[in-house]
Amino acid sequence: MNTSPAPVPSPAITGTTITPVAFADPPLLNTVGVHEPFALRAIVQVHTDAGVTGLGETYGDAAHLARLELAGRAMIGADSFNTHELRVRIARALAADTTQGGHGMSGMVTGSATADRVLSPFDVASLDIQGKVLGMPVSALLGGAVRDSVDFSGYLFYKWAGHPGAEADRYGQALDPAGLVSQARWLVDTYGFSALKLKGGVFAPEAECEAIEALRAEFPDLPLRLDPNGAWTVETSVAVAERLSGVLEYLEDPTPGIEGMAEVRRRTSMPLATNMCVVSFADIPPAVAAGAVDVVLSDHHFWGGLRRSQMLGGIAETFGWGLSMHSNSHLGISLAAMVHLAAATPNVDYACDTHTPWKEPEDDVVVPGVLDLQDGAVAVPTGPGLGVELDEDALARLHEQYLSAGLRERDDTGYMRRFLPDFDPSPARW
Amino acid sequence: MNTSPAPVPSPAITGTTITPVAFADPPLLNTVGVHEPFALRAIVQVHTDAGVTGLGETYGDAAHLARLELAGRAMIGADSFNTHELRVRIARALAADTTQGGHGMSGMVTGSATADRVLSPFDVASLDIQGKVLGMPVSALLGGAVRDSVDFSGYLFYKWAGHPGAEADRYGQALDPAGLVSQARWLVDTYGFSALKLKGGVFAPEAECEAIEALRAEFPDLPLRLDPNGAWTVETSVAVAERLSGVLEYLEDPTPGIEGMAEVRRRTSMPLATNMCVVSFADIPPAVAAGAVDVVLSDHHFWGGLRRSQMLGGIAETFGWGLSMHSNSHLGISLAAMVHLAAATPNVDYACDTHTPWKEPEDDVVVPGVLDLQDGAVAVPTGPGLGVELDEDALARLHEQYLSAGLRERDDTGYMRRFLPDFDPSPARW
Ligand SMILES: [Mg+2]
Ligand SMILES: [Mg+2]
Repeated sequence: MNTSPAPVPSPAITGTTITPVAFADPPLLNTVGVHEPFALRAIVQVHTDAGVTGLGETYGDAAHLARLELAGRAMIGADSFNTHELRVRIARALAADTTQGGHGMSGMVTGSATADRVLSPFDVASLDIQGKVLGMPVSALLGGAVRDSVDFSGYLFYKWAGHPGAEADRYGQALDPAGLVSQARWLVDTYGFSALKLKGGVFAPEAECEAIEALRAEFPDLPLRLDPNGAWTVETSVAVAERLSGVLEYLEDPTPGIEGMAEVRRRTSMPLATNMCVVSFADIPPAVAAGAVDVVLSDHHFWGGLRRSQMLGGIAETFGWGLSMHSNSHLGISLAAMVHLAAATPNVDYACDTHTPWKEPEDDVVVPGVLDLQDGAVAVPTGPGLGVELDEDALARLHEQYLSAGLRERDDTGYMRRFLPDFDPSPARW
Repeated sequence: MNTSPAPVPSPAITGTTITPVAFADPPLLNTVGVHEPFALRAIVQVHTDAGVTGLGETYGDAAHLARLELAGRAMIGADSFNTHELRVRIARALAADTTQGGHGMSGMVTGSATADRVLSPFDVASLDIQGKVLGMPVSALLGGAVRDSVDFSGYLFYKWAGHPGAEADRYGQALDPAGLVSQARWLVDTYGFSALKLKGGVFAPEAECEAIEALRAEFPDLPLRLDPNGAWTVETSVAVAERLSGVLEYLEDPTPGIEGMAEVRRRTSMPLATNMCVVSFADIPPAVAAGAVDVVLSDHHFWGGLRRSQMLGGIAETFGWGLSMHSNSHLGISLAAMVHLAAATPNVDYACDTHTPWKEPEDDVVVPGVLDLQDGAVAVPTGPGLGVELDEDALARLHEQYLSAGLRERDDTGYMRRFLPDFDPSPARW
C-alpha cells in the first residue's frame, strides 16, 4: 500500500530582486576604525513560478551587489529547492568575474570565499521558499531543531557619544571601563543576556584588560569574551591571555593569521576563538595542521549559507573545535537565518553574537514581533520558511535611506580618518 | 502578503518494526574468508501517527539487532522529521549498552562508531517519511540532486564454483585471471559498468597483479581498482603500487591502519583509498595528520545515515580527498539510499561500489522496477521519499529464510575454516 502523494514539482526561479538598504548605525569602535552613520545590507528576493518568494540578506558593498546581480541572472530557471544546483550556477557565473573587494567586513575579514559569500543569501532564500511551499520552518529542513530558542551574547563596544557633528545617541559614550560596565548593565537589564563579548583592539591592551576585569567584578557569573580583531602581537596576546586566564571563556583573534594564533595557543592555556583566520573551507586544513584555534565562529554570510555552515559545524565537531557564531551589523532576515541555523546545529556550544541591540527596532525590513530578544535568547520561528515576513514599505524606506546616505561600501577606516587623519589600522600594532 | 500555508506538524513516531532477513549469497572470497550461503540484513520500518511508514536497511548481526531494538523503543514519540533528535535519543539509549560486536563486516571493518551504525537506518527512514509526507524525493531533501543517475563499478570477486556441497551457481568459478576476465565480461555486458573493482587479499599479490593486468588487457579503457582489505605489509603494498602504477585508478586499503597507509602513501604515487582506516569521524583527524589517504569511501551504514555521510563528503572536499562509496551485500532499500545520497553529494568522484549483481533479483524486499542497473548506473528514484515500496510478502519470505538459515551473524572466517581448518585471516600476511 502506497499512501504517498505524487512528488511535488519544485518551483522554478523566475527572477531575483536585489535591493541595497541602509540603516542607522552608532559610532561603534573597532581596530580598523569606527562604524559609519549607516550600515549597508542587500536584501535578496528570489521569485518562483509558484508565486512564493524567498528572502536572503547579505552585505551591501557595491562590488558584492554587482556579483549578486550576476548570480541572480544565472539562476533564472533553476530548481528553487536545489541549493547544490544554485552553487554550481553561481560558480559558473563568477568564473569570469575578476572584480576585487566587496567582502563587507571593512578590512577585518578579507579571506572568505567569494563564491560562498555570493551563494549565502540565495541558499537562505532557497530554504525559505522550500519551507513556505512545504509548510515547514527552515530549522526542520536542516534536520530539525535541537532547541526552542537560541542564546545570544551581549555585544559590548567602545563607542563615542554620537557621530561627530550629530547629537549624542541613546546608547551613550563608552571609552573606559566604567562606560562599558554601564553599557553592559543596559544590555543585561534590557535583553537578559547571559554572556558578554567586548569588541577590543581599540585601546591599549592594558586598558582593555582593565575593562574586562571591571566587567568581571560587576558580573561575576557571566561568561566574558574579548575580541581585538588581530590587533596584537604574539607577545602581547600571550601576556593578555595570562592576565585574563580564568576570566575569559575565550579570547577571539588576539593576533592575525594561523601561524600567530598557533604560537599563542602553544604558549597559553587560554581557549582561542576565530572568525578571522578560519573564514573559508580552504583555511581549515592549515588551521588544523597548525593547531591554531579551539573555537570557530561560524557565519552563514561567508560560509556559503546554512547547509554549508552546518558542514562547518560537523567539521568543528570532528576536529574537537568548539562552535560559536559571528555577527555583523544585520537586519531581521539574517537574524532569522542565524536562529534557524543555530537551532539545527547540535554543537553550537556558545551564545551567538548579534548586533541587534545596536539597531533601532523600526529600522528593519521584516514585520516585527517574531525575533524578540528575551532572556538573552531568540525563540526559533515556527512559521513556514524563515518565519519572517518582508515589509515592502520598510524595504522601500531603507532603500531610500541607502540612496540618500550615499555610502557604497563599508569603510570604517576612511570614516575614522576624517576625524583622525593619522589613524593607523594596521594589525598587531600593540 | 503571506502566501504560505500554516506549518505542517511533523508526524510523531509511534513504533518501529525491525525484521532480520536473509538472502542467498554466492561463495565470494575475501581476505578474512568466504561469504556464507546467506547474507543477513535488518529491515527497519518506522511507523508514524500520520500513517506513513519509513524504511531503512542495515546489518543483520544479532548484537546489532539488539541495539536496533533499544533504539527503536527510544524513539517512540519523537518527531519523525528530526534526525538530530533521533541521534540524541539513540546516544542516550546506547549509553548503557556494553555489548560487543555486531559491526556486520566480518572482521574487515570493526572500528566504526556504534551510535552511527545504529542511527543510520533510522536516519534513512526519517528522510523516507519526510519525503513521503511532503511529496519529495530524498535527494531533494538533501539539498538537491546534481545528477539524474549514479554510476556504479562492476565488483569482481574471486569465487568458488558454488558453495561446498551445493551445485555450482550461475556465476561460475573465478580463481585465476581468466576466470576474473570472464566474470568481468559478464558484468560489463550485462550491466554496462564503466569501472571495475577487484576484491583482493585472497591470493598472493603476484597473482592478483596478474589478474589486474589481464583485466587491463581485456578492458583497456575501464578504470580499475584493487582492494585487498589490508592483507599486505607496507613493503608489499609499495611493490604492488609500483607494479600497478598507471594501471589502477586507486589502490584500496593495501595495508592495515593509518600509519601503514601513510607510509605506503609517502613511498608511492599511487592514489590510496580506504573504507577500513577511516570509518568514523574520530578517524579523520589522525588520518589527516598522517596523510594516510587520497580517497575515502563513504558508507551511510556506518557513517550515521545520509546527512552525516554528506558531512563526510564536505570534509573530503575540504581536505582534498576524493570521494567514492563502499558497499556490503545489500538489498534495495540500501541501494535506493545510496543512490539518493550520491545524487545529492556533488563531489562523489568515482563510480560507487555495489554488490547488486551478486544477488538474485527476486531476493529483495522492495517492489522491483525502480533500481535497475543500466549502462552501469541506477537512475535516481523520483518518487516520494526513497522512491521504493516495501513488498510485505517478500519481507516475510526473506524473514522465513533468516529463521531457517540459522545464521545469526556474519562469519566469513568461521565458514572458511569449515573447509580449510587452518585458514588464517590475519591482516598483512603477505
Ligand atoms: Mg571576531
Ligand atoms: Mg574496501
